Amino acid sequence: MFQVSQKSMTKIDGSVASPKGFSAKGVHCGLRYSKKDLGMIFSSVPAVSAAVYTQSHFQAAPIKVTQNSLKKDSYLQAVIVNSANANACTGEQGLFDAYETRQKLADMLGIEPELVAVSSTGVIGQYLNMEKIHQGISLLKQIEPSHINFEKAILTTDTVTKRTCYQLMIDDQTVTIGGAAKGSGMIHPNMATMLGFITTDASIEEGALQRVLREITDISFNQITVDGDTSTNDMVLAMANGCAGNDCLDENHENWSVFKKGLQFVCADLAKQIARDGEGATTLIEAEVKGAKSNLEAQMMAKKIVGSNLVKTAVNGSDANWGRIIAAIGDSTASVTADKVEIHLGGQCLFKNSQPQPFSEALAKNYLENSEVKILVQMYEGNGTGVAWGCDLTYEYVKINASYRT
Amino acid sequence: MFQVSQKSMTKIDGSVASPKGFSAKGVHCGLRYSKKDLGMIFSSVPAVSAAVYTQSHFQAAPIKVTQNSLKKDSYLQAVIVNSANANACTGEQGLFDAYETRQKLADMLGIEPELVAVSSTGVIGQYLNMEKIHQGISLLKQIEPSHINFEKAILTTDTVTKRTCYQLMIDDQTVTIGGAAKGSGMIHPNMATMLGFITTDASIEEGALQRVLREITDISFNQITVDGDTSTNDMVLAMANGCAGNDCLDENHENWSVFKKGLQFVCADLAKQIARDGEGATTLIEAEVKGAKSNLEAQMMAKKIVGSNLVKTAVNGSDANWGRIIAAIGDSTASVTADKVEIHLGGQCLFKNSQPQPFSEALAKNYLENSEVKILVQMYEGNGTGVAWGCDLTYEYVKINASYRT
Repeated sequence: MFQVSQKSMTKIDGSVASPKGFSAKGVHCGLRYSKKDLGMIFSSVPAVSAAVYTQSHFQAAPIKVTQNSLKKDSYLQAVIVNSANANACTGEQGLFDAYETRQKLADMLGIEPELVAVSSTGVIGQYLNMEKIHQGISLLKQIEPSHINFEKAILTTDTVTKRTCYQLMIDDQTVTIGGAAKGSGMIHPNMATMLGFITTDASIEEGALQRVLREITDISFNQITVDGDTSTNDMVLAMANGCAGNDCLDENHENWSVFKKGLQFVCADLAKQIARDGEGATTLIEAEVKGAKSNLEAQMMAKKIVGSNLVKTAVNGSDANWGRIIAAIGDSTASVTADKVEIHLGGQCLFKNSQPQPFSEALAKNYLENSEVKILVQMYEGNGTGVAWGCDLTYEYVKINASYRT
Repeated sequence: MFQVSQKSMTKIDGSVASPKGFSAKGVHCGLRYSKKDLGMIFSSVPAVSAAVYTQSHFQAAPIKVTQNSLKKDSYLQAVIVNSANANACTGEQGLFDAYETRQKLADMLGIEPELVAVSSTGVIGQYLNMEKIHQGISLLKQIEPSHINFEKAILTTDTVTKRTCYQLMIDDQTVTIGGAAKGSGMIHPNMATMLGFITTDASIEEGALQRVLREITDISFNQITVDGDTSTNDMVLAMANGCAGNDCLDENHENWSVFKKGLQFVCADLAKQIARDGEGATTLIEAEVKGAKSNLEAQMMAKKIVGSNLVKTAVNGSDANWGRIIAAIGDSTASVTADKVEIHLGGQCLFKNSQPQPFSEALAKNYLENSEVKILVQMYEGNGTGVAWGCDLTYEYVKINASYRT
């Protein structure tokens, strides 16, 4: 897609709180039984911000409130996130509650409400307990910053927190990009909600930030699937507060591609962490499609492969059942010449020239027992490439999602 | 869609062998360990025939051979079906084998090879054992007709045979329409292959048969989903031999709607039998969408609901988790006004006016414990209606599909 020297990019042990001027907190306010359930990211100065949202027809109330905040101008200074309750499908009351949450946090911080974004994840169709939200905001005022507490507060049935951080050089200034995310599952299992928060101290023009966030989201977060269900609350939010002191970035800046690559690394890293922690998952599945007619077609096919229940169960059973990969590709609307397609797994070619290829089942089985497996498909239709990430389908997934909500 | 008096239509305990002039057989030739694996339908006279095929880019060899038979003219007199091996992704050799199968059956019956259709279901990427196919064709010559043996011979991991039969009056003649089908699963688990065979003694114009088969397939077989994966071998074949003695049917015949309704009953009946017998399934899920902008949008949404892993696991756990139905509808490209949507389950309204509705969880849980459940969604966008069928997602599904092929 674009070539950038790896040397200009360093992964560090950081978080959303690592870029200059950012801090994060998390508390327990009582929406969950005992775990942290309310978090906040804060920037010492207003940050140019951009967001991409779920495409669901049923966008949740907090999504609407965040859109309202970003409509005035593209600046945000804080985002408040609760878990356990999605505040989705809750009508006028839900919208009122989300606006009140925004107002209360703004009052606590002494900033305008339009500088606050609101985000929720959890069960659909239940009203927020606003008394607990108010208590939580008071607690957020009192406690010390801790990015770990923030990362915990946004989780539902996730089994691990998800963070990443990269540093890059722009205009001889160190620019830091940090990220946090949550994946799929709920205490009261409900939806595969995905939230991502990116912070950076880069100075960047607002239109450029929105464009690059959309572009990178399409090849990172939008390329993961746990169960094919799109949440009412999905959101990825990026905040850039300019504290690094670089010249304002846009597509014409000579280091634009460095920033873009850094953002891609951050988003792809979080996306893979989400897929790996999919409900009940034991294996991260990466599908790479090369030589498609376009990147879009390659991305679509890659996502179809990792989204196939039959591929997911085959990986779960360490079974190199490549017919299922054929089924997934065959069903796509992309350009496919059946005679040209090749399927590779763990260094072995399984299918080529429209015929099965001899391969070692033992080696393939062994490879599929890794915690991370990669399926490579060669199309020979053009230069399009795409990667997608998913996870295996296990008894545990059925168990988590078949259990009664209460 | 179209109104026809129920009185003119009778369901009888029949099969593909019930329409006048049709017979069916099934034998064990050794592709499976001990079960029947090779079947044949035969008509005493050539029958006007029509077929719809998988849309996969990797159409299997037998599909290509059947297309070749129907290209000469629209007449078929026999169809041969093997289970255990899909003869898909087997290159030139596979195509050669499918043509040879057609020739051998034609020789045995003493008819032209172009009057024979070929169909296969089973594991992908393995060559057919032609010696066993030859032996099976010899056996087919010797044994007595038995529609039950045919129904058994086309199964893979199906747990029950699937047949249906309706009788109707056309031109004061009794017309019979029979059907057989197989659903999803394999001895060597591989793909959700779906085969359907419809026979009728009606006289019908060939173009009209092809058009109505396509139309009815779209609202019956194409509205079921077990796991969202499309096979390389799916086919529905209809044969009409004219033995009933009615005036030739087409869209202008005064009893056209009677025939069409009869075909719809036959196809929908088989489709539901397939969904109910989905791999590992315990519950048939029917989703009906009313008031969509068009029938097509209603069908699409209904299929999205029954195809959602989260809906499927919720039904498995008897959990009235309607947020998951919202997620499925919300994610569709259809016209959706979030405020208008209503969700009903077992006589209770769960969601309306964009707000959760009070309902009895106990009653809902009780309803979901039935072996057949219906989800009703009201859209209030127009007059479009659509129905789709699926099944719950169970541990057993994961078990069947995670087990190693050999």
